[in-house]
Amino acid sequence: MTSPLIIDCHGHYTTAPKALEDWRNRQIAGIKDPSQMPKASELKISDDDLRESIEANQLRLMKQRGSDVTLFSPRASFMAHHIGDFNVSAAWAAICNELCYRVSKLFPDNFVPVAMLPQSPGVDTKTCIPELEKCINEYGNVGINLNPDPSGGQWNSPPLSDRYWYPIYEKMVEYDIPAMIHVSTSCNPAFHTTGSHYLNADTTAFMQCLTSDLFKDFPTLRFLIPHGGGAVPYHWGRFRGLAQEMKKPLLKDHLLNNIFFDTCVYHQPGIDLLTRVIPVDNILFASEMIGAVRGIDPETGNYYDDTKRYIEASVLDAEARYKVYEGNARRVFPRLDARLKAR
Amino acid sequence: MTSPLIIDCHGHYTTAPKALEDWRNRQIAGIKDPSQMPKASELKISDDDLRESIEANQLRLMKQRGSDVTLFSPRASFMAHHIGDFNVSAAWAAICNELCYRVSKLFPDNFVPVAMLPQSPGVDTKTCIPELEKCINEYGNVGINLNPDPSGGQWNSPPLSDRYWYPIYEKMVEYDIPAMIHVSTSCNPAFHTTGSHYLNADTTAFMQCLTSDLFKDFPTLRFLIPHGGGAVPYHWGRFRGLAQEMKKPLLKDHLLNNIFFDTCVYHQPGIDLLTRVIPVDNILFASEMIGAVRGIDPETGNYYDDTKRYIEASVLDAEARYKVYEGNARRVFPRLDARLKAR
Repeated sequence: MTSPLIIDCHGHYTTAPKALEDWRNRQIAGIKDPSQMPKASELKISDDDLRESIEANQLRLMKQRGSDVTLFSPRASFMAHHIGDFNVSAAWAAICNELCYRVSKLFPDNFVPVAMLPQSPGVDTKTCIPELEKCINEYGNVGINLNPDPSGGQWNSPPLSDRYWYPIYEKMVEYDIPAMIHVSTSCNPAFHTTGSHYLNADTTAFMQCLTSDLFKDFPTLRFLIPHGGGAVPYHWGRFRGLAQEMKKPLLKDHLLNNIFFDTCVYHQPGIDLLTRVIPVDNILFASEMIGAVRGIDPETGNYYDDTKRYIEASVLDAEARYKVYEGNARRVFPRLDARLKAR
Repeated sequence: MTSPLIIDCHGHYTTAPKALEDWRNRQIAGIKDPSQMPKASELKISDDDLRESIEANQLRLMKQRGSDVTLFSPRASFMAHHIGDFNVSAAWAAICNELCYRVSKLFPDNFVPVAMLPQSPGVDTKTCIPELEKCINEYGNVGINLNPDPSGGQWNSPPLSDRYWYPIYEKMVEYDIPAMIHVSTSCNPAFHTTGSHYLNADTTAFMQCLTSDLFKDFPTLRFLIPHGGGAVPYHWGRFRGLAQEMKKPLLKDHLLNNIFFDTCVYHQPGIDLLTRVIPVDNILFASEMIGAVRGIDPETGNYYDDTKRYIEASVLDAEARYKVYEGNARRVFPRLDARLKAR
């Protein structure tokens, strides 16, 4: 068996040039004082700026660690769908998606874009469709990130099983693209963004699917739950038991044709649990590098988020590793597969 | 080494006679229509009713599974601190705590009471002190359950590190009692009570402690985080890495003198992860039986929540098992230790 392509299905553009944040801050100021609202055209980031921000960071680490392709989406914590109204989110999403698209054009071998949506709390999800269509049709995006809590920690949107979300699902099915279920920054002081809000959202999303029959309505819909599925694999027995109490089918039939987990779990015992509990067909390699945890683990001397090392040290055999690194990503993201085949 | 006493540190009175629920429903009706508000004295539950509800359920399973003592508190999902005002919570907590006390008197060898508090969203936590004092001084309670989200899924209380909670902590230190951090039912449709709200709360509470210096203010304060710590042990590397980014001490120094995890994880791989990652001094045996997951696991033929089987099948040696079953509980709950010694 030849070496698999190492596809990291979870990367965000966390290292975008400072001009992006400056523009966003002006936009936020413009919500209160429309005279300050910047135009999209006022954001100036050159190709050289983009190259530098990638080469010195993600690409450097990808080479160091030996990964080949990163599915690359706008910075999750900066999506901040709770800020302003739909127009604010629409302008911001368009700018962020365009930057990831440009990165994918500058580094076509290494970065494949995934879109954020211009979600806004309480707003009809149909409003997200034009940006989604543009990202798929014009930018070559292979998937989307879907925020189950655009309020940023108030959790006042309907569960993912609600018809509120169906316009997005219909488009996902039409385009045969999956969604990573990923929240953004928490503005609720109870929840630390990357320490609890992200993990809670993963668990919450899984349970929203478990209690519903969403995948009867959309048999081909695919969700990728990041951060190793939050608390789900660790409590797999609890979830199996809860499904049983609710007279749902076995989880492998009820959910595992549609739900996948990434490997953003930052220590060996966690990855070992994940690979022991979750069928290998449902695990996709990812690191979320450069993300929430950037340091070096004093217990190992390696980066916490160098998750490839944990996969290498796991019990997975060569065939299973091929699936985790490459095969599953090609299956869950058919547009990625088509893109790789077209090379 | 003699066989350890098997102490289950996490049991709720989920099988209380139906009269309790009926009284509660009348109380809830009484919030809108004070003429319907029942008096506490209108609740009639005989000792025989109590005996029957315990002997046929918890005690039967304890004998079957071989556990000796259960720390027994009112049903967590019924605490529902969001219902009504402080007076409603106060009447309800008093009734529920009295029932657990009566169970402990009827079965002194097997049940030791732990108190719920009359919390109410936004209300000064000082108001909880009289009930707490009664439960410790008159009812012989050895610990309390503390709800970090009395709103029931709105998460609008200050983090556990906030001075809002200090009156309770001061009393806990004075009495040398720990608190299990346990939410109640979720009235937020985003969160399934036992499938996501409980686990999210565990992770959230841990992270609230991690980001703060709470245990500098209260070096002897002890929290027991249930359900195996939510997502925490599975993501132990993430939490170590986040603490490192925040320039906090190593977690073992920063949190593990004060935070403990129970073993309510309902499958072997989860318990194996827990015992591999968390120091054995920080793990307390528990099953939360009879609780959220009452069925038999078709993969093993045993009850999901028969957690003793997982401990028996884990790598823990006899000394470690003594700690998990008995030693740690005696250390974390000194009033339990005193009670057992007085036998």
